[in-house]
Amino acid sequence: MIHKIHHVAIAVRSLDEALRFYRDTLGLPVHEQAVREDQGVKAALLTIGESEIELLEPLGPDTPIGRFLERRGEGIHHICLQTGDIDKELTDLKAKGVELIDQEPRQGLAGRICFLHPRSTKGVLVELAQPPE
Amino acid sequence: MIHKIHHVAIAVRSLDEALRFYRDTLGLPVHEQAVREDQGVKAALLTIGESEIELLEPLGPDTPIGRFLERRGEGIHHICLQTGDIDKELTDLKAKGVELIDQEPRQGLAGRICFLHPRSTKGVLVELAQPPE
Repeated sequence: MIHKIHHVAIAVRSLDEALRFYRDTLGLPVHEQAVREDQGVKAALLTIGESEIELLEPLGPDTPIGRFLERRGEGIHHICLQTGDIDKELTDLKAKGVELIDQEPRQGLAGRICFLHPRSTKGVLVELAQPPE
Repeated sequence: MIHKIHHVAIAVRSLDEALRFYRDTLGLPVHEQAVREDQGVKAALLTIGESEIELLEPLGPDTPIGRFLERRGEGIHHICLQTGDIDKELTDLKAKGVELIDQEPRQGLAGRICFLHPRSTKGVLVELAQPPE
């Protein structure tokens, strides 16, 4: 059961420059900012209704976001959909033949997460997340 | 003042195939389906929390979505952010030097809408929408 869009993630070259548009010009409030060495990103999370905009600056070229920028340039990297039971969701998706990037849920910024392969989702990198209670 | 993500729009080659994933596999309910000759699309709108997933199949290759598919392939086309006052929003954005695709609001699927240029938004095609009351 999918409840809502948890966040839309945008790959950017400079977090400071991106904040000038999304925070200062559009007026979205930042509720968290963090460096995540394990994910290779400097991130800012902005509140928008029940969802978030996640701005991701790579810590270096040899990171997932760094390689995405090299290949595609700045833009939307993925969308994250919130579920109440990620284990059941993954089991169901596997049974339906959906191609997964993560075979099991793992810990991410948004809670327990997994990524589905864009081949199964019409070209969209979709993350599922079950946030902590 | 931006209230929420109104929708995330995905460009797809076949609406029927895309519905097999987003409606049948993920379980998102479709609340509207329509052919919009003026926009050159066959669209399906799926409910996800307070937002929508908008699936867009082009009516032909010489349409905005047809050209996007040719250039980029299937994937996220734009995100739409909801505002309570699109006239004031546009006036403010112009004053702040944001590059606009639409200089004035126009009628779209989501109400009175306008598109901002990806050059001003870190590579994201952003639509603003003020839905009808």
